[in-house]
Amino acid sequence: MDYERPQFFRVMQYADAAERDVVDMVSGNPDWEPPGALRDGLIEYADSDPAGFQYPASEGLLELREEIAARRNVSVEQVLITNGAGEANHLAMAEGLTRGTGDEVILTDPVYPYYAGRTNLLGGRARYVAVDDDGQLDSAAVREAASDETALIVVNSPNNPTGAVYPEETVRELVAIAEEYDALLVSDEVYDHFDYSGTFTSALAVDSDHRIVTNAFSKSLAITGFRVGYAIVPEPLMDGFRTRHMLTNVTSSRPAQYAVWRALRETPPDYYAENREMLRERIGAFTDALDAAGAEYTSPEGSFYVMARFPGFSGTMENVERLIDEAGVAGMPGAAFGESRADWFRFALVTPRAADAAERLADYFE
Amino acid sequence: MDYERPQFFRVMQYADAAERDVVDMVSGNPDWEPPGALRDGLIEYADSDPAGFQYPASEGLLELREEIAARRNVSVEQVLITNGAGEANHLAMAEGLTRGTGDEVILTDPVYPYYAGRTNLLGGRARYVAVDDDGQLDSAAVREAASDETALIVVNSPNNPTGAVYPEETVRELVAIAEEYDALLVSDEVYDHFDYSGTFTSALAVDSDHRIVTNAFSKSLAITGFRVGYAIVPEPLMDGFRTRHMLTNVTSSRPAQYAVWRALRETPPDYYAENREMLRERIGAFTDALDAAGAEYTSPEGSFYVMARFPGFSGTMENVERLIDEAGVAGMPGAAFGESRADWFRFALVTPRAADAAERLADYFE
Repeated sequence: MDYERPQFFRVMQYADAAERDVVDMVSGNPDWEPPGALRDGLIEYADSDPAGFQYPASEGLLELREEIAARRNVSVEQVLITNGAGEANHLAMAEGLTRGTGDEVILTDPVYPYYAGRTNLLGGRARYVAVDDDGQLDSAAVREAASDETALIVVNSPNNPTGAVYPEETVRELVAIAEEYDALLVSDEVYDHFDYSGTFTSALAVDSDHRIVTNAFSKSLAITGFRVGYAIVPEPLMDGFRTRHMLTNVTSSRPAQYAVWRALRETPPDYYAENREMLRERIGAFTDALDAAGAEYTSPEGSFYVMARFPGFSGTMENVERLIDEAGVAGMPGAAFGESRADWFRFALVTPRAADAAERLADYFE
Repeated sequence: MDYERPQFFRVMQYADAAERDVVDMVSGNPDWEPPGALRDGLIEYADSDPAGFQYPASEGLLELREEIAARRNVSVEQVLITNGAGEANHLAMAEGLTRGTGDEVILTDPVYPYYAGRTNLLGGRARYVAVDDDGQLDSAAVREAASDETALIVVNSPNNPTGAVYPEETVRELVAIAEEYDALLVSDEVYDHFDYSGTFTSALAVDSDHRIVTNAFSKSLAITGFRVGYAIVPEPLMDGFRTRHMLTNVTSSRPAQYAVWRALRETPPDYYAENREMLRERIGAFTDALDAAGAEYTSPEGSFYVMARFPGFSGTMENVERLIDEAGVAGMPGAAFGESRADWFRFALVTPRAADAAERLADYFE
């Protein structure tokens, strides 16, 4: 599997170019409204004096870092604002691979393809640990895969693409394994606001100099294009992180940081709860229609993806293009996430037409 | 000299914490107004539908790429939008050092410290070529320094910190040397709108698969905090660039890209000309006052920095702090830019109080 270039943009372009109506379930782009305070923040920012348009601190706007620190119950010195979770994960993986403690990166199978692509880019060697049918990661299998060569363990909970939410004991074990082998656990928690199970546990629950938590407002505030993310970095690692961030991006975009800060301060908990509930219902309608189609699928505990498979129709890029052209539904090929899901497709529940899409699939496969 | 962490933010923090009034001439943060259309663009963007807040293409907003391609007279396929010139330079240097054609990076002395820091970060070996007293780079000296080990030649014209603008023959020679040794010339042209000499030549004037031009709107639109830059990349190198950009940042911040696009389309040439003229006058007033102080200095042909030195007072960080505390003027230590300018200070002309600052310096050193 070639992870060098994640395939999301390729599938989106194919779907956009299709001549028929296509329900877009490709990317993790929320289709719901961002908070009103976010729009207000941009408008307010537009009126800044010239100094307000210049470099913020390299670590990010102090008021935004303070807001995040308070919410995550960490010191502000541990918070670095990044260009989305993408940069946060990039920095974390680059730091892990240059500490001189090995070049092996433990990833799950299926995997979010950017982790695999970054492993290649940064000269690491990927070692995959397969998850079970429910998407759960067996920490004993991770321990077995770990060795003195392990530089990084990169996980994502709630998970894309499986929808699994790892229980607290898994999170604790992963931190313990990272400590045992002088590796870094990178815990990407970008779907933390979309936990339907009530069991989500942040890796911040375990205090350790061997775990880095990454996150972003892309999903929780419905702004994947703003590129405002962050890393929570233990103090001994922060100096390296700051330097790498500065030499990579200097700093992150200020209008977006300001708008996110306003949105965080002024958006009530209802905003998050209502979107979560809306997604829960959407997932229910989609999977009900898949049931009717006789498809096999996973019901996510978190995030907003459903993996499904259809007899005799494997999850290749070619078949993704057939579903776009012949069924009018665009998903991602399971093969893009690893060998273990090569039979599957991933559908992102980011459209009010999710149930329609499932009916189209049912019609197509009946 | 430790370039691992550029010192700009450190000096700015020191100046901010000073108890007295300090004229800030540290960073390259414009103090003048961004174009009105930029503010309008942000306000218009704030009213987008939810889809407008999501990921733009990884390469950047198509309309912005088209606008840049038309202005630079290149095909849109050669334009990649980055998180400021910082990311563009980072990508270019990372690509140059992973092509397998050597690990040596030719830099000028004095050097913009981020180039030196990135060389270290990316595992390259810096080889410095000293410029002459006017800041001009002798291409014969570059050729002498070049070898089969040369991966990159990184230059900046109009130059920070010297203010030199390289003539066309230098630019042509640098491209020729890069071709000869299968290296990449990275030509950072972020000050291209601030050429007082009328002699600025972009490396785009020389068609070659061995030259990458980087730029940003940080200075020309007075928005260092927006982080909108770009790289013009020859077709054979673009695939690697796109992948690295995607795996580093996914894409750049969309509100800022949109506002820049609006500003480019609607801002008349007068905007740029007036700011250039304002800076030219400011530089004149500052250097006149330095004359009165008996200081030695360079008159920039481009960019907006003046290097100056004062007898018996070398350009160390310690002396920068003394000037802040005792003279009320904050500049950058020349030593931050290389050994050859260790006696000098760099003053950024980004304050209407530049002439006052020069008078404070004159009083201090008299």
